[in-house]
Amino acid sequence: VRILVVNVNTTESMTARIGAQARAAASPGTEIVAATPRFGPASVESILESHLAAVGVLDCALRHADGCDAVILARFGELGREALQELLPVPAIDITEAAAHVACLLGKTFAVVTTVDRAVPAIEDRLLLAGLRSRCVSVRAVRIPVLELETSADVTVEAVARAATGAIREGGAEVICLGCAGMAGIAERVSQEIGAPVVDGVTAAVRLAESLHALGLRTSKVGFYAPSPTKSISGWPLAL
Amino acid sequence: VRILVVNVNTTESMTARIGAQARAAASPGTEIVAATPRFGPASVESILESHLAAVGVLDCALRHADGCDAVILARFGELGREALQELLPVPAIDITEAAAHVACLLGKTFAVVTTVDRAVPAIEDRLLLAGLRSRCVSVRAVRIPVLELETSADVTVEAVARAATGAIREGGAEVICLGCAGMAGIAERVSQEIGAPVVDGVTAAVRLAESLHALGLRTSKVGFYAPSPTKSISGWPLAL
Amino acid sequence: VRILVVNVNTTESMTARIGAQARAAASPGTEIVAATPRFGPASVESILESHLAAVGVLDCALRHADGCDAVILARFGELGREALQELLPVPAIDITEAAAHVACLLGKTFAVVTTVDRAVPAIEDRLLLAGLRSRCVSVRAVRIPVLELETSADVTVEAVARAATGAIREGGAEVICLGCAGMAGIAERVSQEIGAPVVDGVTAAVRLAESLHALGLRTSKVGFYAPSPTKSISGWPLAL
Amino acid sequence: VRILVVNVNTTESMTARIGAQARAAASPGTEIVAATPRFGPASVESILESHLAAVGVLDCALRHADGCDAVILARFGELGREALQELLPVPAIDITEAAAHVACLLGKTFAVVTTVDRAVPAIEDRLLLAGLRSRCVSVRAVRIPVLELETSADVTVEAVARAATGAIREGGAEVICLGCAGMAGIAERVSQEIGAPVVDGVTAAVRLAESLHALGLRTSKVGFYAPSPTKSISGWPLAL
Amino acid sequence: VRILVVNVNTTESMTARIGAQARAAASPGTEIVAATPRFGPASVESILESHLAAVGVLDCALRHADGCDAVILARFGELGREALQELLPVPAIDITEAAAHVACLLGKTFAVVTTVDRAVPAIEDRLLLAGLRSRCVSVRAVRIPVLELETSADVTVEAVARAATGAIREGGAEVICLGCAGMAGIAERVSQEIGAPVVDGVTAAVRLAESLHALGLRTSKVGFYAPSPTKSISGWPLAL
Amino acid sequence: VRILVVNVNTTESMTARIGAQARAAASPGTEIVAATPRFGPASVESILESHLAAVGVLDCALRHADGCDAVILARFGELGREALQELLPVPAIDITEAAAHVACLLGKTFAVVTTVDRAVPAIEDRLLLAGLRSRCVSVRAVRIPVLELETSADVTVEAVARAATGAIREGGAEVICLGCAGMAGIAERVSQEIGAPVVDGVTAAVRLAESLHALGLRTSKVGFYAPSPTKSISGWPLAL
Repeated sequence: VRILVVNVNTTESMTARIGAQARAAASPGTEIVAATPRFGPASVESILESHLAAVGVLDCALRHADGCDAVILARFGELGREALQELLPVPAIDITEAAAHVACLLGKTFAVVTTVDRAVPAIEDRLLLAGLRSRCVSVRAVRIPVLELETSADVTVEAVARAATGAIREGGAEVICLGCAGMAGIAERVSQEIGAPVVDGVTAAVRLAESLHALGLRTSKVGFYAPSPTKSISGWPLAL
Repeated sequence: VRILVVNVNTTESMTARIGAQARAAASPGTEIVAATPRFGPASVESILESHLAAVGVLDCALRHADGCDAVILARFGELGREALQELLPVPAIDITEAAAHVACLLGKTFAVVTTVDRAVPAIEDRLLLAGLRSRCVSVRAVRIPVLELETSADVTVEAVARAATGAIREGGAEVICLGCAGMAGIAERVSQEIGAPVVDGVTAAVRLAESLHALGLRTSKVGFYAPSPTKSISGWPLAL
Repeated sequence: VRILVVNVNTTESMTARIGAQARAAASPGTEIVAATPRFGPASVESILESHLAAVGVLDCALRHADGCDAVILARFGELGREALQELLPVPAIDITEAAAHVACLLGKTFAVVTTVDRAVPAIEDRLLLAGLRSRCVSVRAVRIPVLELETSADVTVEAVARAATGAIREGGAEVICLGCAGMAGIAERVSQEIGAPVVDGVTAAVRLAESLHALGLRTSKVGFYAPSPTKSISGWPLAL
Repeated sequence: VRILVVNVNTTESMTARIGAQARAAASPGTEIVAATPRFGPASVESILESHLAAVGVLDCALRHADGCDAVILARFGELGREALQELLPVPAIDITEAAAHVACLLGKTFAVVTTVDRAVPAIEDRLLLAGLRSRCVSVRAVRIPVLELETSADVTVEAVARAATGAIREGGAEVICLGCAGMAGIAERVSQEIGAPVVDGVTAAVRLAESLHALGLRTSKVGFYAPSPTKSISGWPLAL
Repeated sequence: VRILVVNVNTTESMTARIGAQARAAASPGTEIVAATPRFGPASVESILESHLAAVGVLDCALRHADGCDAVILARFGELGREALQELLPVPAIDITEAAAHVACLLGKTFAVVTTVDRAVPAIEDRLLLAGLRSRCVSVRAVRIPVLELETSADVTVEAVARAATGAIREGGAEVICLGCAGMAGIAERVSQEIGAPVVDGVTAAVRLAESLHALGLRTSKVGFYAPSPTKSISGWPLAL
Repeated sequence: VRILVVNVNTTESMTARIGAQARAAASPGTEIVAATPRFGPASVESILESHLAAVGVLDCALRHADGCDAVILARFGELGREALQELLPVPAIDITEAAAHVACLLGKTFAVVTTVDRAVPAIEDRLLLAGLRSRCVSVRAVRIPVLELETSADVTVEAVARAATGAIREGGAEVICLGCAGMAGIAERVSQEIGAPVVDGVTAAVRLAESLHALGLRTSKVGFYAPSPTKSISGWPLAL
């Protein structure tokens, strides 16, 4: 099995961490291809950046998807998953939804702990469109920008654990989803601190992608994700 | 008042029609600037194209927004409105939502009649995110591709009227929204055929934009649409 | 354009303020006719009063609607809009819904700040029936009775700004709707205090009414608002 | 126990039928007072009429409520129940909700069969406000005006049974609510025709009213239905 | 009228209290048969116990239902009501739903006050399935185990009144439902303390059961509750 | 990895088929233990049977769970999953939810094709409680009893394909879930007939169970599924 994991930003160190995280979660025999878009923002923390990143991700996925059995969109609350499903015959999985689906199997309710306040409504919108909003009791931000997450794992773990505990005690959450691909590698530590399951979207997506492949299941092409007619794209500077 | 109307595709003839439609609806003293993106698809009929178009629209809006009092995103069910609201201080209005808001003032329920089947779920998603899904009883497609709409107005009117009548009789719709900017100019004829109000999103958006300007109201910047921090966009080939 | 603005209570000073507010918001060339019902409560703060006021408003609208292009129901959370839509061919706009529709164009979420606690459920019910409940994060009361609003604008502004700030900080509101026609004239001051858009329903309704007229759109008569068969109203003391 | 049943129209023959229907359903020892408003429409089939009737009903209830242990609002989908709850210390029950609550105890889903098409959205609105919409699979009209219901019971039974059978077979309804007080007396015959329970709102309301009285339960006065402050009603021609 | 009230646990003293409570609420001429399952948990405070209790209740109901006109499932938030409706021709009423339906007749919103935290999601699930979730503003636990409720009525009353007051003040509840059959007999005292109606599910269910019987209404057998085909139950140790 | 798959009925041949189906879907190195309850119905087609089966399943799971890394509840729309989650530290997966979660990854909407009409509301209830109802466009029955499914695979495939095609064409479904564990082994054939993905719940659950184990994730014990206090179960004839 060969799985393409596309970072949505152009920060190579984050691609490396996400790739390592994916590899650690993968079955023996699964090959992880971690790719960085050729262009786009260094980190995605605005709606504009999410749009630019989506095109970078689509360009990146088209260049690397050949020979891959599944594609993972490795950022929480970002745009582009539906376009990947339309473009590719193989499954395309968004880590937002991967984490939420897995969380639903582990508890009656879940909460998402993300980086900054402005990511909250974007994540809520993704969950609403995915029909997964009703079991999410809250989306909370630790107010640490994405690129600072790498600075101190201890600080991040403590902040995430504090927000997670609040979501459990005040909001009735039973499971926590890490709401940023940049939080890779801290799930287990946070889980031990808070005494509840913590789902990392990248690792969840890797296992779900392997599962779909093993089950012989691919994206449905009878409706929204049917291949689109080829058409000239006038003036577009990208190699699409 | 100066209103920028951005076509989402790169077909100049459609920009011209949308601009004419907007001008016909505008108050005396309102200047309509109709703009075509520098790059992007000739028509938007897939999710990929909607993503490419969104970036073309953002690029276009940034180049033309200076001195404008409002921006209109002139395609039904397309991506990008939230990014425009984040980027600009002046109001940014999506014709999907403009039509739906106006329809809600005219009847208890409404339906959307659009071009092709694959546009249906995209429109439903936009209405869901806008909190306007509950009063929309159906979204129906006439199965005429966008670029063929211009071929014969008679054929288009007849097809739209037939779908609209079905939505009224079987689905209980009371108002019809034209679900494509390319249907500009047929609202009145369809309305006469079906005996119910027909809302054209472009004209609705023009009047709503004028209204917001007159009321001194602009996009809220305390939450989701707060300006994003400036950041380097590595490798991006566009002049953003 | 001629717009009838019907105060729902019989307090002439309030009709005058609402009329002035409407005139200030109207386009040049728009004539505002502000009318007071011949009978009904001095202020509407109970469900009984809302019912009595609705009949007073219907009587008032029927007497003054001739020659008007639109009618505005000038009180927040009150009954009667559907009956106006049924009775009249021209658009009838409730300021509750006018404010909510405009707020939806300005931010992802909105809150309503109203006068007294007992107005809260009435407003929530109107928004629910209008399909606009999902984007309203809260309805809050400043606990100042309607007729005391005129006493001190400073006190009102401060109370509304405090409630609005709470709705933004604790509830995630991005836009504030003034939940009482008696709050006319304070929107700009409150907006400056809180740093977010504040929508006044009367002014919003005036611009929406002008817009519908300009677009040639009237209430749909194919469903709920179809004209009712004329019938004798036995023993009714009103001139209907 | 003394229960006031208020007809919403001024047709005395209908009051008599509703009263007889209520008496037949009442426990021994329960006194039914059936009252006709002093003014209002002969039958309620429009929104205007529903507003006029609501005031007639409030006037009627205030004049007769003294010494009564509960009040029943005897028309389906009509306005005014909340005002009765505010005005009176004793329970006020709307037959729309009475029928729906009883139907919920008898089957997983229910449908309403009413008189005319224009009653459908009014009933849907009442059920939505009452939080009972989710178990109602459809509201269907037999297209017989209220005052013709008395003409031929056989015709009415057949029409209701046909609509009910459609609601069961196509819509999955398990219980039928008769959606008009004028359908009094046909529940059993329709039930035998269709082989499913048929709930008559008047009889359901009588038993619910008796139950609340026996349980010593009255309308909550801590929120929406708290008594309103007495205030002068200027110019109101009615003896309120 | 003969009503079977089935305690869901095997604690005879609780059956006695529930039976006394039911008798005190019943009309003259109604016979209450209070039954204890032959097997099952002493109190139901887990999901496993709810499943075991459900089978005990079904066994108990089948042995005692002969000659009864209705059956009441006397525990809050427990499983089994649907099976009773399928098994029996006479109405089967769950006290959770009985309390909620009655509460809906008394106020705009209600809250449930139950025993322990783990009962909360079970009650929420029952209300969701019954379509009654939207008017329930909260389910709160006093954190007193079921079998300790009998120890001190004063302690229970005080704890319930405190939780109820919180639900009214913070959550906007207007009516309180006692969320445990073991709270029998305290409704009136709590109501006096808090100044709002308090609904006891057992007494509510008795009156609703009498009402259905008087109205000649039984469980619908055209859908979910149709009798199931007889089939061998291999190896089952119970007398079914 | 060792996964316990519990058939909910006592038909050994069906356990064998489910076990074979699970083994075919499992990764190398995964051991499947397929178990049949010691008591319960031969097939589950009523609500009573679902309750009896749930206890049989709980008894069966407790006897076999030792040493297992996950438990699968192998029948569609059945009761008991929550109790398994409460009882066991390892994940417990219901095939209804497993199929729905996987379907959500493959298309925008899904439909379930099940055996008999009476299974439909039970499945809808499970999906509602799981928060997965909004993406399910319909649940359809082929009207073939469970135990006849084995008679002729051809007949079953044809009936399921016909219902699935209807769900796609009329209802807009994009993915089909097989709504009965007895449909094991036909997914691929049906998929080829209809040209859309078909999800088998047993195989989906096996892969999800393996995934959760690989990710080190177990059922959350901080809320609804916390272990219950041990208590005497008086008179219960089963070895619990």
